[in-house]
Amino acid sequence: MKMSCRLRDRKEWDVRASTLARNTFNPIRDIIETLKIKPNPDIPYIALSVGDPTAFGNLQPSENIIDTICEMARLNDSRSYGPTIGHWEARQAVAEYSAHQGPVTADDVILCSGCSHAIDITLSVIADAGQNVLIPRPGYLIHKTLGEGLGIVIKYYDLLPDEDWQIDLVSLESQIDENTAAIIVNNPSNPCGSVYTKKHLKDIIEVALRNRVPIIADEIYEHFVFSKHEFTSLSSLSKDVPVITCSGVTKRFLIPGWRMGWIIIHDRNNILGKEVRKGLFSMSTRILGPNTLLQRALPRILKETPQSFFDDTMRFIENQAHLAYQELQKSPALRPIMPQGSMYMVVEIKMSLFPKFENELQFISQLCNEQSVLCIPGECFNYPNYIRLVLTVPEDILREACHRITKFCDEHMMKEKLKIPDNDIVSIVNGKSSEVSSKQQMLKNIS
Amino acid sequence: MKMSCRLRDRKEWDVRASTLARNTFNPIRDIIETLKIKPNPDIPYIALSVGDPTAFGNLQPSENIIDTICEMARLNDSRSYGPTIGHWEARQAVAEYSAHQGPVTADDVILCSGCSHAIDITLSVIADAGQNVLIPRPGYLIHKTLGEGLGIVIKYYDLLPDEDWQIDLVSLESQIDENTAAIIVNNPSNPCGSVYTKKHLKDIIEVALRNRVPIIADEIYEHFVFSKHEFTSLSSLSKDVPVITCSGVTKRFLIPGWRMGWIIIHDRNNILGKEVRKGLFSMSTRILGPNTLLQRALPRILKETPQSFFDDTMRFIENQAHLAYQELQKSPALRPIMPQGSMYMVVEIKMSLFPKFENELQFISQLCNEQSVLCIPGECFNYPNYIRLVLTVPEDILREACHRITKFCDEHMMKEKLKIPDNDIVSIVNGKSSEVSSKQQMLKNIS
Ligand SMILES: Cc1ncc(COP(=O)(O)O)c(C=O)c1O
Ligand SMILES: Cc1ncc(COP(=O)(O)O)c(C=O)c1O
Repeated sequence: MKMSCRLRDRKEWDVRASTLARNTFNPIRDIIETLKIKPNPDIPYIALSVGDPTAFGNLQPSENIIDTICEMARLNDSRSYGPTIGHWEARQAVAEYSAHQGPVTADDVILCSGCSHAIDITLSVIADAGQNVLIPRPGYLIHKTLGEGLGIVIKYYDLLPDEDWQIDLVSLESQIDENTAAIIVNNPSNPCGSVYTKKHLKDIIEVALRNRVPIIADEIYEHFVFSKHEFTSLSSLSKDVPVITCSGVTKRFLIPGWRMGWIIIHDRNNILGKEVRKGLFSMSTRILGPNTLLQRALPRILKETPQSFFDDTMRFIENQAHLAYQELQKSPALRPIMPQGSMYMVVEIKMSLFPKFENELQFISQLCNEQSVLCIPGECFNYPNYIRLVLTVPEDILREACHRITKFCDEHMMKEKLKIPDNDIVSIVNGKSSEVSSKQQMLKNIS
Repeated sequence: MKMSCRLRDRKEWDVRASTLARNTFNPIRDIIETLKIKPNPDIPYIALSVGDPTAFGNLQPSENIIDTICEMARLNDSRSYGPTIGHWEARQAVAEYSAHQGPVTADDVILCSGCSHAIDITLSVIADAGQNVLIPRPGYLIHKTLGEGLGIVIKYYDLLPDEDWQIDLVSLESQIDENTAAIIVNNPSNPCGSVYTKKHLKDIIEVALRNRVPIIADEIYEHFVFSKHEFTSLSSLSKDVPVITCSGVTKRFLIPGWRMGWIIIHDRNNILGKEVRKGLFSMSTRILGPNTLLQRALPRILKETPQSFFDDTMRFIENQAHLAYQELQKSPALRPIMPQGSMYMVVEIKMSLFPKFENELQFISQLCNEQSVLCIPGECFNYPNYIRLVLTVPEDILREACHRITKFCDEHMMKEKLKIPDNDIVSIVNGKSSEVSSKQQMLKNIS
C-alpha cells in the first residue's frame, strides 16, 4: 500500500506506482537485462532465445488462415463488439476442437487475448493475495509474473530431469498447504519439452484429489508432440478434480501475435460452483473480450487447417531436436536432454568444467559476446546450470548455432579435468542468419 | 481475502472466487438483468442501448482499413509476437496522430487491447487498493467496474446538466482528499455528449494542480464532435499536471471489436517519474500486448483514412442528434439534451408525470415491453430520472424509436397534470429494424 499523501494543499507531487505494478515483472527480462551481453559484431547474431516459432520466417501459418482473416475482415459483424466471453460460434468451435479434453460445451469456454490472458484471468479468480499456487521448477515463469503481481505466493514443485521431467510427486504434495489455491501443470512443457504419460497424469490428479486442490492445466503446447509420444489432456482423465485448462492458437497455428487463447472449465462435479465460473466471466468483462476478427475466423481456423500442416511443423521440430541433440552431445561439457514435444531443448552445462564462470549466466553472456548466440539461462526458469534453446529456427542456423556453442565450450572448458586430447575445433560456417542491431531487439519477445 | 482452508486432508472441497473477481462487475449488465424486460413480440425490437456504432451495419469502416488488414495478414512479421508495449512503428504512428495532445514520442505510447484495457492498466498502476479515484456523475461506469475490482474506492464529482454538462468544480475539489490518486475526465462524454471548452479544461487542470492530483483523460471520443464545437485534448493545456490519456481506434474508426487502444503518458515535469512509467510498462507484459495484425496495420489506418470518412460519420451523427432532439421534444414528458459530440443523447424523464413508475428503471422496462425499444436507464450512469439513447442507428429506425417513445409517454403520463388536450397519438410506421430473438442478445455488448 502506498503511503497516503498528507495534505492536499501541499506543494510537492508524490505519485507512486501501485503494489500490483511494482510486483509485476518479467524475470526473464530482468535477468537478461542485467547480463552484460554484447554480441560479437563480427559474427551474425543468432537468437535461440525467442519462444516464437515465427520469429525467423521459416514457419508460416497455413494459407487457409490468412484467407479466412481477409474474408472475415469484410464482414460487418467481424468488427462489432462481441460478448465479453466471446461469440458463441467461436466458443462452440473451441468446444468441438477440445472434445479430446472431455465433455465441453460452448458454455465452458471463455475466449481470451492469448493464453497469457487466460492464465491471468484464471489466477486472478482462483486465488486471493496471500494464498499460494504451485508451479513447476524448471518452468515458464509467466505463472510467477502474473501470480506475484496479484500478491499470490508462488511455491515450486520439482521436475525430475532424469525421469523425463516428470513431476516429483513427493515434492508436489509436500508443497501443498492450507493456503494452496491451485496447482499449475504445464504439459507439454516449456522449457523441458516433456510430454506426460496417462499414468503420470493420473498420479498428479490423485495428489490433487487427495488434497482437494484444483488444477490449472497450461496446455498451450497441446498436440505439439513428437512421433512415438502421445498427448493426453489432463482434464480428460479427471473425474472429480476441477481442471481449468488454458490454451490457444498461439503455437500450433503459428500466429502468436494475434492473441487468441481460451479458458475451458472442466468441473464435472460442480466443485467450482457458480462463484468461480461467474468470477471468470466477470473478469472477462474488464477488457471486453479478444478481438472479434480472430473470433469470427476461429471456427474455420480450427476446422479447416489441414492435419498435414500440423504434421509438417512437428516433423520439422522433431528433426531439429535430433540435430541439436547430436551436435551438442559432441561436447563433453554439455548434456542435451532430448525433448518429447513442444519446441525447446534443455541442455545441462557441466559448470565444474568452467571454473572461470561463476554460473550459467556468465556462461551465457560470454557465449553471446564471443559467438553471437543467445540462449536463455536456466535461472530464467528457476533452474541454474541449464540453458534453453529454441528449436524452431531454420536448420542451417540451428546447426551453425550448435557448432558455435560446442566450439565455445571447447575453447573455455578445462580440458585437464576431462583428460581427453584437444579436439579439432569445429569449423564455423557463416550460415544465413538475421543480424540484430541492438540489445533492444534481442530482448524483444523473449518467452 | 478468502477464508483459508483448514486441513488439507479434509474430505470437502472449498473453492471460492477471489475478492478481485467478486468485486469486478458491470453495473449496466447487473441493472439490465434485474429489469424484467420482454420486448413486445408484435413490434420489431430496436436497441438504442448498444454503444456500438457498427451494431446496425449502417456505419462501416473506411475501405482502406480492410484492405490494409488483408495486406498485413500476408506479412510474416504481422503474426509474430511484438514487444509488449507494441511495435515501435505503431507507437510512432500513434504519437504522430496524437500530436494535438502536446509533444508525444513513441516512448510515451503503450498500445493496449482497446481503451478499456488502457484504463485498466492505468488504474492498476496509479492507485492502490484503498486509495480513491474520482469519476464523473453521470458517467460511463467501466471506470467503476475496473477500479472497484482492484479495490480502489470510487468517488463521484457532479456534472451540471444545465451548463452543458461541465464539471461542477466545487464538487470536484470537495471530493479530493489525502487518498485521491487520480481524477478521471471523460471528454467528449459518454453518456452526455458534452465537449468541453478550452476554458473549462484549464479550470479542471487548475483544480488538479492545486491539489497535486494527476489526471486520467478518457478521450476515446476524441475528434467525435459536431460542427461549431471544437475538441481540445486535456493534455494539450497542461503544463505541470501529469495527464495519462487513454484512447484508441474503437469509435472513430468504427472497429470496436478489433481491440486497439493506447495509453499516452504526458508528464512534462517528470512527476510520474520512472516508477509509474515503469509500472505501466510492467503491466503491459501481463498479456503480451495487443494483436500484432492490428499493430502492423495501425500506421496506415491512422494516416490513410480520409478526412471525408470522419466528416461523413460526424455529419450523420449530428443529423441524428437533431432528429432525436426534435422528435423527443414533442413530448412534454421528456427533456432531451442536445449533445455536442460523441454518439449519445441523454433525455430527462419528467418522472412526476408518471406516478405509476417508481423510477426510470420501471419506465425503461415498460417502454421495452410495450414498444420494443430499449434505452439505458440513467441508473447505469449513476444518474436516475434520465435515459441514454444511442444515435448511430439508421435514420428510419431512430425516427421510429423516437415515435414509439413519445407515444409511450403520451399513453402513460398523467395528462391532467399538464392541462393540455389529448394529443393525436403519433402514428407508428413499421420501419426497417433488426429483430432480436433473445434477452441474451439484448444484453450483449451494452456499453
Ligand atoms: C507454457 C506457456 N504458457 C503460456 C504461454 C503464453 O502463450 P500466449 O502467447 O498465447 O499468451 C507460453 C508462451 O510462450 C508458454 O510457453
Ligand atoms: C467513455 C468510454 N471509455 C472507454 C470505452 C471503452 O472503449 P474500448 O471499446 O476501446 O475498450 C468506452 C466504450 O464505450 C467509453 O464509452
